[in-house]
Amino acid sequence: SSKLPDLGVAAGINLLSAFIFLVAFAVLRFQPVNDRVYYPKWYNKGVRTSKTARRSLSSIVNLNWRVYLHFLNWTREALHMPESELIEHAGLDSAIFLRAYILGLKIFVPLMIMGCLVLIPINATGGSIKSQKFGEVDIGLLAISNVFDKSRRLWAHVVMIYVFTAWVCGMLYIEYKNVMLMRLNFHDAVDRRPEQYTVLVKNIPSDPDEPLTLHVEHFFRVNHPDYYLSHQMVRNANKLAKLLKRLESLENWKIYYKNKQEREPGTQPRTKTGFLGLWGEHVDAVQWYTSAVEQLRREILKERERVMDDPKAVLPVAFVSFKGRWGAAVAAQTQQTKNPTIWLTEWAPEPSDVYWPNLAIPFVELTIRKLLMRIVLFFLVFFFIIPVTFVQSLASLDQISEKLPFLKPIVNTAFISSLIQGYLPGLALKLFLAFLPRILMLMSKIEGYTSLSSLERTAAAKYFIFLVVTVFFGSIFTGAAYTQLNAIIKEPPTKLPTLIGNGVGYKALFFITFIMIDGWAGIAAEILRLKPLIIYHLKNTFLVKTEKDRDKAMDPGSIGLNENLPQIEFYFLVGLVYSVIAPVLIPFIVVFFAFAYLVYRHQIINVYVQEYESAGAFWPHLHGRVIACVILQQICVFGILLSKKATKASPMLILLPVFTITFHLYCKNRFEPAFRKYPLEEAMAKDTRERAMEPNFSVKNYLQATYLPPALQIEEEDEENVIS
Amino acid sequence: SSKLPDLGVAAGINLLSAFIFLVAFAVLRFQPVNDRVYYPKWYNKGVRTSKTARRSLSSIVNLNWRVYLHFLNWTREALHMPESELIEHAGLDSAIFLRAYILGLKIFVPLMIMGCLVLIPINATGGSIKSQKFGEVDIGLLAISNVFDKSRRLWAHVVMIYVFTAWVCGMLYIEYKNVMLMRLNFHDAVDRRPEQYTVLVKNIPSDPDEPLTLHVEHFFRVNHPDYYLSHQMVRNANKLAKLLKRLESLENWKIYYKNKQEREPGTQPRTKTGFLGLWGEHVDAVQWYTSAVEQLRREILKERERVMDDPKAVLPVAFVSFKGRWGAAVAAQTQQTKNPTIWLTEWAPEPSDVYWPNLAIPFVELTIRKLLMRIVLFFLVFFFIIPVTFVQSLASLDQISEKLPFLKPIVNTAFISSLIQGYLPGLALKLFLAFLPRILMLMSKIEGYTSLSSLERTAAAKYFIFLVVTVFFGSIFTGAAYTQLNAIIKEPPTKLPTLIGNGVGYKALFFITFIMIDGWAGIAAEILRLKPLIIYHLKNTFLVKTEKDRDKAMDPGSIGLNENLPQIEFYFLVGLVYSVIAPVLIPFIVVFFAFAYLVYRHQIINVYVQEYESAGAFWPHLHGRVIACVILQQICVFGILLSKKATKASPMLILLPVFTITFHLYCKNRFEPAFRKYPLEEAMAKDTRERAMEPNFSVKNYLQATYLPPALQIEEEDEENVIS
Repeated sequence: SSKLPDLGVAAGINLLSAFIFLVAFAVLRFQPVNDRVYYPKWYNKGVRTSKTARRSLSSIVNLNWRVYLHFLNWTREALHMPESELIEHAGLDSAIFLRAYILGLKIFVPLMIMGCLVLIPINATGGSIKSQKFGEVDIGLLAISNVFDKSRRLWAHVVMIYVFTAWVCGMLYIEYKNVMLMRLNFHDAVDRRPEQYTVLVKNIPSDPDEPLTLHVEHFFRVNHPDYYLSHQMVRNANKLAKLLKRLESLENWKIYYKNKQEREPGTQPRTKTGFLGLWGEHVDAVQWYTSAVEQLRREILKERERVMDDPKAVLPVAFVSFKGRWGAAVAAQTQQTKNPTIWLTEWAPEPSDVYWPNLAIPFVELTIRKLLMRIVLFFLVFFFIIPVTFVQSLASLDQISEKLPFLKPIVNTAFISSLIQGYLPGLALKLFLAFLPRILMLMSKIEGYTSLSSLERTAAAKYFIFLVVTVFFGSIFTGAAYTQLNAIIKEPPTKLPTLIGNGVGYKALFFITFIMIDGWAGIAAEILRLKPLIIYHLKNTFLVKTEKDRDKAMDPGSIGLNENLPQIEFYFLVGLVYSVIAPVLIPFIVVFFAFAYLVYRHQIINVYVQEYESAGAFWPHLHGRVIACVILQQICVFGILLSKKATKASPMLILLPVFTITFHLYCKNRFEPAFRKYPLEEAMAKDTRERAMEPNFSVKNYLQATYLPPALQIEEEDEENVIS
Repeated sequence: SSKLPDLGVAAGINLLSAFIFLVAFAVLRFQPVNDRVYYPKWYNKGVRTSKTARRSLSSIVNLNWRVYLHFLNWTREALHMPESELIEHAGLDSAIFLRAYILGLKIFVPLMIMGCLVLIPINATGGSIKSQKFGEVDIGLLAISNVFDKSRRLWAHVVMIYVFTAWVCGMLYIEYKNVMLMRLNFHDAVDRRPEQYTVLVKNIPSDPDEPLTLHVEHFFRVNHPDYYLSHQMVRNANKLAKLLKRLESLENWKIYYKNKQEREPGTQPRTKTGFLGLWGEHVDAVQWYTSAVEQLRREILKERERVMDDPKAVLPVAFVSFKGRWGAAVAAQTQQTKNPTIWLTEWAPEPSDVYWPNLAIPFVELTIRKLLMRIVLFFLVFFFIIPVTFVQSLASLDQISEKLPFLKPIVNTAFISSLIQGYLPGLALKLFLAFLPRILMLMSKIEGYTSLSSLERTAAAKYFIFLVVTVFFGSIFTGAAYTQLNAIIKEPPTKLPTLIGNGVGYKALFFITFIMIDGWAGIAAEILRLKPLIIYHLKNTFLVKTEKDRDKAMDPGSIGLNENLPQIEFYFLVGLVYSVIAPVLIPFIVVFFAFAYLVYRHQIINVYVQEYESAGAFWPHLHGRVIACVILQQICVFGILLSKKATKASPMLILLPVFTITFHLYCKNRFEPAFRKYPLEEAMAKDTRERAMEPNFSVKNYLQATYLPPALQIEEEDEENVIS
């Protein structure tokens, strides 16, 4: 049932929805009232400001019909900005993230051309599948499945996988080198960043004779006498952060009721004092919330004082600063004491990259947490497979109509049949997956990573495992035969490649559908920003009084590497696996990469805020995953060749993974240290230059109060608010 | 055919040979003429000197019959020396090596007691094997095989493996901690060692503008301005070393013919000039060798000059020394430049630990070499299994007499049957294994490790893999059924534990025999030192003229971690696996550990020279391998329980490996850094103390010419020889 017409219906539906999303986007973004939803970045930068002073119709709706003719001009805008400007505008991480899509295009466009010119003709004339009427052409006709067992044509596939692997490795090498150079140039160009002078020291042992802060100072004065400058103990402001969050919510309610009162001057809005205003005593809402806010502010003041003064609020963690970059580089890369579980030093994350709640987790606990999360991940991956399996089984309609015969007439309608076959499995899967990133991020937080960037990376790693096991292997083994999955572990390992090969062969259509829903329509939905749009307008209606409130109501979001990286990696996997087996799938992948590149470039320029700057620290992660995809590709092709009984051709593939792994190790040794360490030569050169150019520069003043938890940072700007 | 009488014969033979070896040792070592073979260490230390001035009978043979009565007193002597003295006498590595046997005793003595008290009674009354006449008692009667399938008794084994694992982990933790403290104390106590001030810098890039040595100096003067002291370029003295080796051989021949001439004053020994004196022109031997030596010496002088002066002899490797330990610690632990493949720094090995030929291997080549050696190791392990399989198959006599019926009458003799069953398989295996360590050491050398200690460790790691795959799994899967091995990969993975469990159960007797041959008789042969004894006497007769020659003729050897560590680890594996399955095997293991401890303590005190001092750098290696053995034990017991259909009891074991791995990770994080890094606090404390105590101490003078290849080092002492 993998006929081309089914594919046509699915493609039509998805293209239509993508088109609808794009038109909706065009219409919505031209309305001035939505300007803050679609161009928040420019507001944050202060380039755009709202003209809400006069609430005329033209400030809400755009009546100039000419602009609607150019509804696709966002693509030109998105491509217009050169990379150097993009880096300055949106940060290096964003620019490097976009390079992942470029990598996809660089890999898959040539693969597509080679596949179309070489493999598709060879497959199409294979003659194993009986010729059919044009309307019923099976896509298997263009795939390796159309080649006879033991055919000499299979040698073409062997040659092509060698060519493909060489091409992919070449592109990976070039891009890794590019990204490394971009990172090094970035570090060279940016003259001064707080984290260059600072080291995060964890697991500071307590000393019975002196308070922690003195202990830290003494330790570094003794062991880094020429370089130690100052330090900042981390204080436990978690409770304070919670109170501040509650304050924000209370103030929102206060403003809401005040606005209500102003709009209907006669009425006095009332609320109940209980949970969510659902029960309890009836009171005057404005008065009640005003006094509640007042009270909470006093509480916050007290808590803030406690955090600043109470020695018990000091955590055994400090940000230690050094006089120069050389001293910091040394302290970050060396072991401090005999006992390797105390005085642990590492590069301080960039100030905005710090994840404060995790700073104070003791050493032993970290081991246990990591272990626990691994077990949880195992079960999550394992049990998630059950619902997916169920939904997948819908794809074989025969089973449904057998078990539920009353559905037969509906199911047998050609259109509905195509709809279910082509659309539902992918959609259901996508819905399942929507819940997942949050859970995985929470798991990474529990594991205790101390920077947002590492949290996103590790969550992405988990998500990728999940996608490979659940979506890729789950689809391969369940779709073809319902009980196949269970059978795997009962089969001898020698049969596994054949099983995989067979499974992959069957599922080409499913993955094409998946690409269209997730990759085409999904990306188009991303640009529409439906959820932020709704939330913004709700907030704008009920909560916004000042410009500042309106700034707060924008929710531009960020790239979200934890979701997007695994998505890209998954497309690499699907594309690579099918590049030899069924090259007809590759154009869909190419469209995805091109379209996603456009959309994300637009979003990065106009929407997303940059949460932190890790200077592309995620590239080694991506590179490693793509290498894993290449090896999976080789296994799948090996399996297909085995199942095609190509006894002479298939052993030729055994050397490929060995080459690939060697290539990976070489790249890892060659490029990865640039992403992990700060070489002394650079540090020394910068220090020397700094001393020569600015002999009076004071690092101490420069670093003052950089590494303060956000809950303590707002102190100054909010001081008057709280007191008022 | 695993009857107790067979075991008795095998035990008898092995005990007898061990006893013969010990008696021979006693007789031989009391003869003054053998004193240098059995107590070479004391000669090297200058405590003993030979009294060959008067060649009386008593200087050759000991005629005092009383001493022979105390022929076992070496054991008391061996145990007499306290550990602190042992460390001073033979180095920390030796003392820590002996602790490996202590660890074995600490683990297996309690396991033996628990096994005898709990498991053997439970097994013996299991009643699955039919009761037999006493003479035909099967050792399976005392093993888990005597328990009925699905029996409740199997719960005892589950409980015991938890107890055993806890005990083993506890002992491992205590010993790891002990060893770490010994290492730290050693570093604390030893005030000054050249490697504390020195860093090995590899892959120095060439500079077009200045020679390498200036380039190194400039680089470190710029990037470590306050700490850099001096450096020593490594020069390629490989050819020189070869020439020196040839000189030694030529000189030996010269001396041999001179001695011959002196003993028979009339004759003139003659030789031929060709290869090995087998063909070519007839010449006067003494004259010919004298002139050859003369010529070679001149050549060596020239080559030495070339090495010292020729800039092409300078390799891109240097030993860089720093003013203090702190500076060296920093340089060793940090990355120097952007490009992670150049200016690679690492701790300098101790001067005697350096493996000079490997210092100059380029970065890319190292990756390729490692990859190649992994492939070679795979094939070595894989193909070695074929001969072992063949010899193992001899153990099933029925097969032999079936195929070679004319052997039947011989094979059916009870004694010969016992002999073949009990003795041959183990012996053949041992012979095979004798060749292996050299090959593996050669492979490690090809891989490019730069210190003798790391060469031994990596060769040991390969040997352990070999022992586990070839000996352990090879015996398990081939002995029980000849074709079982081939069948494994055709069986579903769910059946694998059962297969292992069954195999392990069958082979208890084989492993007991193996322990007796390899562990008892083999160790007794070690103390006899037959090969060094013969070589010493040959040299003594033909080559020795002076005391110095006699010193050279001693070949005390060293511990040989590359052979002995894997042996110990293998006994841990066998002992742990059988501790639950057939506890009757454990006493044999205990005897091995106790006896080997005695013998090696004796040898370390009296024989072996210390080649280098790595301060127990091999302990993390050993610890990791024992952990692997524990996990293999758990898998085997799990398999046995599965095959005994203990469906409720066996799942209880799934948590064990998780605990074990967590324990291992904790130990790794907690203890391993002490074996890899030099903490800054220590370095600073020592530097400060040194400055206070010896303000005039010059590091530069102290380090002068420490890091010179041995071929260049002998220069001074040999200068006069060469010129003469």
